[in-house]
Amino acid sequence: MRYPRGVPRSGAEARRRLQQAALELYQERGFDQTTTAEIAARAGVNERTFFRHFPDKREVLFDGEADLRATLIQAVAEAPDGLRPLDMLLCAFREAERILERNRPFAEPRLRIIAMTPALRERDLAKAASLSDAVAEALRQRGVADRLAGLAAVTGWAAFHQAAQAWIDDPSQSLYAHLLRVFDDLRALYGSDVPAQARPEG
Amino acid sequence: MRYPRGVPRSGAEARRRLQQAALELYQERGFDQTTTAEIAARAGVNERTFFRHFPDKREVLFDGEADLRATLIQAVAEAPDGLRPLDMLLCAFREAERILERNRPFAEPRLRIIAMTPALRERDLAKAASLSDAVAEALRQRGVADRLAGLAAVTGWAAFHQAAQAWIDDPSQSLYAHLLRVFDDLRALYGSDVPAQARPEG
Repeated sequence: MRYPRGVPRSGAEARRRLQQAALELYQERGFDQTTTAEIAARAGVNERTFFRHFPDKREVLFDGEADLRATLIQAVAEAPDGLRPLDMLLCAFREAERILERNRPFAEPRLRIIAMTPALRERDLAKAASLSDAVAEALRQRGVADRLAGLAAVTGWAAFHQAAQAWIDDPSQSLYAHLLRVFDDLRALYGSDVPAQARPEG
Repeated sequence: MRYPRGVPRSGAEARRRLQQAALELYQERGFDQTTTAEIAARAGVNERTFFRHFPDKREVLFDGEADLRATLIQAVAEAPDGLRPLDMLLCAFREAERILERNRPFAEPRLRIIAMTPALRERDLAKAASLSDAVAEALRQRGVADRLAGLAAVTGWAAFHQAAQAWIDDPSQSLYAHLLRVFDDLRALYGSDVPAQARPEG
């Protein structure tokens, strides 16, 4: 679909085109070699419009975080009664997966670029830590003990991240199938008691 | 101990004084309100000396990462045969704990400052991810399956982080005691199979 003189019809459309343009340029020439002016030009808007939508060229790939956060918190809040912490998390990740699967053409190259760009990886880790804190708080609201809530959220989030990477490498299975497999791996790792004599001295 | 005109005796001494001065200033007035010039002045050196030792005022709190990395990798490499992945990790964290306990007067305020300063938290997360990658690779070298090695390192590192926070809040127990308790929490979380009907639809 083309617009006269490349001018986007609406703010939302400009925003979407800026994100797409940034992703393309980061793939073509790398994040460090791309300027906000170039992103704006490719999207058919001026640089001022870029800065109306995003504070910097990192944030352009982290749009939708507020939506994701709200979705995760709501999923935990509405999880059926009687579920254990990990299963409340699975409910939440199920929703996150729906968002990622829906945006797969964007999500897949986005995750690749983040993985290979230290500046983006650093931002991504900070966002993940913040989302994990929000999920931990949602678990506490459901009555999960303080310590367990934090630990479940952090390790669950690490599992989700590994599942997302596996899903990129092997799209023949759904992200959720990968996630269930990673949770099985976690059970294999932490599943049974360690004989005391196998532990290093305390 | 005082040196003539405040000039440190050696490079290592200047480095230590810069770290101490930075930590004090970050505590007194906050990270954002502290300049490298002020850190240098408090340490009794000039600003050029600061930049000979550290690239920026974040890195001044992340000295010793190379040592820690080498220590962790060596501990995994030298862990007794027949240990499971988590117990190899415990061997490695036992060594990390020795370093932290030895530097407790520095380690404790350092962790507090990092926790309350987003710019430092972001750097800390990036360092942790990098250390976790190194530990995962060390586990692979010991024959741990690729997937499990990454997952063990990431979740184990999250556990170590939570134990370090708990140790700051409750120094009556050793960091290692806190770590064993967090690993017990992980076993409680991931310990037994989830009835299939309790899982959200796949």
